[in-house]
Amino acid sequence: MIHRDVRILLIGVGNLGRRFARLIRERARPLEDRYGMRVRLVGAVDRGGAAIDPTGLDGGRLADLKEAGRSVSAATGVGRPGMTGLEAIDAVDADVLCEASPVNLATGAEPGLSHVRAGLSRGLHVITPNKGPIVLAYRELVERARAHHVALRFDGTVAGGLPALWIGERDLRGAEIDRIEAVPNLTTGFVLDRLSEGASWDEATAAARAEGVLEADPAWDLDGWDAAAKLVILSLCVLGLDARLENVARRGIGPRMGAWARRERRAGRSVRLLATAERVEGGGYGLSVAPKALPAEHPLGRLGPKSMGVVYWTDIYGTIAATIDEPSPVPSAATMLRDLLAIYDR
Amino acid sequence: MIHRDVRILLIGVGNLGRRFARLIRERARPLEDRYGMRVRLVGAVDRGGAAIDPTGLDGGRLADLKEAGRSVSAATGVGRPGMTGLEAIDAVDADVLCEASPVNLATGAEPGLSHVRAGLSRGLHVITPNKGPIVLAYRELVERARAHHVALRFDGTVAGGLPALWIGERDLRGAEIDRIEAVPNLTTGFVLDRLSEGASWDEATAAARAEGVLEADPAWDLDGWDAAAKLVILSLCVLGLDARLENVARRGIGPRMGAWARRERRAGRSVRLLATAERVEGGGYGLSVAPKALPAEHPLGRLGPKSMGVVYWTDIYGTIAATIDEPSPVPSAATMLRDLLAIYDR
Repeated sequence: MIHRDVRILLIGVGNLGRRFARLIRERARPLEDRYGMRVRLVGAVDRGGAAIDPTGLDGGRLADLKEAGRSVSAATGVGRPGMTGLEAIDAVDADVLCEASPVNLATGAEPGLSHVRAGLSRGLHVITPNKGPIVLAYRELVERARAHHVALRFDGTVAGGLPALWIGERDLRGAEIDRIEAVPNLTTGFVLDRLSEGASWDEATAAARAEGVLEADPAWDLDGWDAAAKLVILSLCVLGLDARLENVARRGIGPRMGAWARRERRAGRSVRLLATAERVEGGGYGLSVAPKALPAEHPLGRLGPKSMGVVYWTDIYGTIAATIDEPSPVPSAATMLRDLLAIYDR
Repeated sequence: MIHRDVRILLIGVGNLGRRFARLIRERARPLEDRYGMRVRLVGAVDRGGAAIDPTGLDGGRLADLKEAGRSVSAATGVGRPGMTGLEAIDAVDADVLCEASPVNLATGAEPGLSHVRAGLSRGLHVITPNKGPIVLAYRELVERARAHHVALRFDGTVAGGLPALWIGERDLRGAEIDRIEAVPNLTTGFVLDRLSEGASWDEATAAARAEGVLEADPAWDLDGWDAAAKLVILSLCVLGLDARLENVARRGIGPRMGAWARRERRAGRSVRLLATAERVEGGGYGLSVAPKALPAEHPLGRLGPKSMGVVYWTDIYGTIAATIDEPSPVPSAATMLRDLLAIYDR
């Protein structure tokens, strides 16, 4: 019993996008059986071009191509070398745009921001794990989605596969939130754990790179930009603040932290890059990202090397913490499936 | 800007009900400002009778009456001594029934089950933190709600103010869940912590009673019935099982556990009454409730004496844990507000 045919256009077929393409292919049957949804990938776009097939692309085959270092536009019969994301949004009949291009705040979040804008304006639901557009243009995009009667969802922007954002936005409605503390970045936790175990900075970052958790631009993670971007998104969505990256007092992690990390570990504390939003005297919230030593009793004080988490201090719902252990990028990619089901399975 | 007038009939004005009555009174203004909802308590019923006022009762005043040991039906001008819940459901024009009467599985979950049935059939949305009706008649009630186009929500039935159920139901859609582990009962954790610190059984249970966390019928908590009921609800809603209380292999806590609890604490482990649903060979899940010693690395291994939590082991969303520290019953009562907003603020 198919209630709905859902046609997806995917822009960005990297770490998350290709895993998502594979996932919806592998899960096609349970999605039909359980949710009555026939999910078809009708277009996929990367830097080299696009692959388009209104009857449905094979996401697994596209992922194989990407893993072999090629563009999806090399797919036989369906490839469109040189076609851009914006062109695909115009050319492809789809219901949902999944925007999974890399975050790039240096270019004003482009090309992602233009994709999200164009998708919403064309009446597509938009799902994105790309922090850039949300950090830079949250209110405009929410307004645009409302005007076009479509959904904008971005669960994957904060703390990987953890529904950190939606717990805060949905489940804490009606409460005052006094403080949010989050460990939203996996890479820095991984590096800090290595440092605290005695590794040198070079060894620790090399291990992170070997593990695939350190991006091409290490400063994005290590200098705390990623954590700050996630804190801004939490502040926008959960606290309703007009937060911007410039409002975050930001300190990253660096080579001179080894002795500190080792000392804290010996004392039974866990070192993490902590993102904090807390009420300040006179009203409003102070936003900061800084390395902190967390005691074992802290709700985030026992995170594993591939874990992330968030804690909400509220007036009427007590103190609520949520954590995720995420051994691979699959949970982060799967947030696009979660968002898809949140739109269609109501 | 009021978009909606929401009239509430509350049945059961005990620990949770009276706190909820106070809460919606105190939060009237922010509910209007933020969500455009004017929430009015138009009826309240306890064992002594009802209080009814279509223009809105003062929830704070009713809570004061209850705290002075009196019935809401003693409220001047609005009291209806002797009126029952079912009579009130017929007599009061309301939009939402909040059923917060005490759980009582010995009587087939009555009177709560009849209230929930009658409310749904009368076209009211029903919100209940009462486990009884859900454990005994989940499918029937879901079907009845669907037939009458109303919502049935019961976030408060599992792990107090923690949105354990809705995280499992909403945020894990699309995943296979291999295992659920939960510490859904606060009382047993409190008693076990005292035992592990060296208190005798009598001292530990007396402390729990003095703290207000041990109910009139201690067996409900201590013998694991409460945890088993919550595990059944998780199994019904999150795993889609046809689970019943009889399916749970249940062991509670008792006077002979002191030495074990002290030994485990010395070894750095935390003792808790753990509810587990896990896949068994040949398909299906095994359900159990039993005292367990949890190592510090376990996601529930560092819970405080007034904390609860749940862990989901999934295939595509990693391992997700959520915990709550709940120093008073307010978070459990506030789940009714969360459910209310989930119905009206979509």
